[in-house]
Amino acid sequence: MDEVDLTDRAEVQGDFETGLNADDQLELRVWLRLLTCANLIERNVRQNLRETFDTTLPRFDLMAQLDRAPDGLTMGALSRRMMVTNGNVTGLIDRLVTEGLVERRPAPGDRRAQVVRLTRAGKRAFDGMTPAHADWINEMFKGLGRQDMTALLRLLAKLKQSLAEREGQEK
Amino acid sequence: MDEVDLTDRAEVQGDFETGLNADDQLELRVWLRLLTCANLIERNVRQNLRETFDTTLPRFDLMAQLDRAPDGLTMGALSRRMMVTNGNVTGLIDRLVTEGLVERRPAPGDRRAQVVRLTRAGKRAFDGMTPAHADWINEMFKGLGRQDMTALLRLLAKLKQSLAEREGQEK
Repeated sequence: MDEVDLTDRAEVQGDFETGLNADDQLELRVWLRLLTCANLIERNVRQNLRETFDTTLPRFDLMAQLDRAPDGLTMGALSRRMMVTNGNVTGLIDRLVTEGLVERRPAPGDRRAQVVRLTRAGKRAFDGMTPAHADWINEMFKGLGRQDMTALLRLLAKLKQSLAEREGQEK
Repeated sequence: MDEVDLTDRAEVQGDFETGLNADDQLELRVWLRLLTCANLIERNVRQNLRETFDTTLPRFDLMAQLDRAPDGLTMGALSRRMMVTNGNVTGLIDRLVTEGLVERRPAPGDRRAQVVRLTRAGKRAFDGMTPAHADWINEMFKGLGRQDMTALLRLLAKLKQSLAEREGQEK
């Protein structure tokens, strides 16, 4: 792996890291590289979803969350998992309900609460997209071996733990 | 580091990874953990910028890019470094120009092109925010040792390289 080459490439294309120096704060360098990678992957998935399935990333993400929760999710749980506010999810759900891909039902224990889940048609539509989505992600991680990915997963777990501890302190 | 504990925590708070299983595709797990970390950090910085300096993340990011380019940047270079389209940056620059924090000048070599840079007041305003910003980032990475961060930086470089190669193939 050649980091110098990577920097040269960044000079041409440009990203969050461009213009940083090796003597800049290490934490900042990690953060901006993390953000650059997240943006590149997200941009790629967004473009592929549009070109291949004529759909958007928020729609796909919402259906992915519901797919992992066959019993459905409350609005609160769903928006926490999508890491956005309730307001951001409501309009999206309305549209998916109109299209017959998602349904709202009273929660079993608490009839005032509502649970959202995929309809059969929604499940079918989502299942039609997952193999292609998995291929795009695999393709993007092609340069990393299994050991790299396990190491990355472990380091990101440590970072996530560090972030969670910080959030915990604030409360 | 206790991954089980982390999963339990995620069940309560919820994030992109919630509901995933250990037997899900490794690449997908890495990607969703990366996205979760990026979202948590961004959310934290956004909130701190608002509470401490009454400013927004796009404003800070734009000024940070200009701060790293004392000779100024063309609109194209600036939007590439911010990883957004030109259109997204134009309105923001207009406002910063009105506030006297940023200036537009004809490019030295090509008078039809324009170069954007920080004014003295802009530089001063930005310098007033960087120490606090550095503290926030350091605080969030506290759980990682120097060796962890170097390893993370290296693995993310490899991922970025993998993403760049993929983008290169498409052209």
